[in-house]
Amino acid sequence: MSLVLDPAAQDLLFREARTANTFTDEPVTDEQVQAIYDLVKYAPTAFNQSPLRVVLVRSPEARERLVSHMAAGNQPKTAAAPLVAILATDHEFHQELPQLLPHAPGIADAFFSERSVREQAGTFNASLQAGYFILGIRAAGLAAGPMTGYDPAGIDKEFFGDGDHSVLTVVNIGKPGDDAWFARSPRLAYDEVVSTV
Amino acid sequence: MSLVLDPAAQDLLFREARTANTFTDEPVTDEQVQAIYDLVKYAPTAFNQSPLRVVLVRSPEARERLVSHMAAGNQPKTAAAPLVAILATDHEFHQELPQLLPHAPGIADAFFSERSVREQAGTFNASLQAGYFILGIRAAGLAAGPMTGYDPAGIDKEFFGDGDHSVLTVVNIGKPGDDAWFARSPRLAYDEVVSTV
Repeated sequence: MSLVLDPAAQDLLFREARTANTFTDEPVTDEQVQAIYDLVKYAPTAFNQSPLRVVLVRSPEARERLVSHMAAGNQPKTAAAPLVAILATDHEFHQELPQLLPHAPGIADAFFSERSVREQAGTFNASLQAGYFILGIRAAGLAAGPMTGYDPAGIDKEFFGDGDHSVLTVVNIGKPGDDAWFARSPRLAYDEVVSTV
Repeated sequence: MSLVLDPAAQDLLFREARTANTFTDEPVTDEQVQAIYDLVKYAPTAFNQSPLRVVLVRSPEARERLVSHMAAGNQPKTAAAPLVAILATDHEFHQELPQLLPHAPGIADAFFSERSVREQAGTFNASLQAGYFILGIRAAGLAAGPMTGYDPAGIDKEFFGDGDHSVLTVVNIGKPGDDAWFARSPRLAYDEVVSTV
């Protein structure tokens, strides 16, 4: 065995977990989301910049506003999921860097004074964090249904409105319901992905 | 407990794992990399597009070429790590979609005929996969040292040269050595990251 991670954990996070398209009615609590955050917050970002922001869409009114921006094929599951989270990049993440990187107080000015640099770095690092967050949802025994089919400008305006946040993905969260997923699609073979020089 | 993931697995992947800056001499084998890939390949991407590609830099000559493109502060650890992997996006990932999404053969033409769309979607989904891959390295009992300080155009030209791949991060991989990391930097509080509407 080349992996030291417990096989049950491998199954929970990767092999048995699946992207869910239907959910039961069981609620997802704030305590569960806090436990997910308190786990995945430790995974790495460059300079600890931690640019991911999460909006939990809980009120029926906010859910309706979100559904109106989703692609037609994503609307029914977004309307029905126990919880929906908007994952976004904060392009002004450098304002928190003095707190996040206390041993290197000059980093924000040295590397991130330009907005275009922050957008590029922030988007990459928040995307890494979105990956960690999806696995964190699974670590809580829940299924994630990440989606990218929506009007991003509409969501940014509707839920942030400050011009400083860009949605990365919208994630349905809950216990999987009936016929929650398709058959597993194939993955690329190792040699199609990994090469050696 | 709101998490169902075993606490030892939580520690291995998130709480005790750290970004390593020094490594022992113990080699990282192809079998370990294959086990990492065979685990993390199951984590989700949109339409199963799976755009991440990985180059393992094993020969001394290729290592020298890579080091020459790294920022000065990253050169010594990149030169010394047991294994270095270049993680990149394949912007022509749509060519594999018929194989990856056999139940929806029209997706490549319907959504990904434009290069700019593929670059945006591919970069996000490969970044998610980079997050999965970093956790997969930890699942193998190894430490990851992801870096973004380098000349990206230089690496793209040197290691791909086809105009169709963009480096996302370069990752040092191995067993942590002496003084492998700094003290843990603070993370943002839950309320600074997660809001509810």
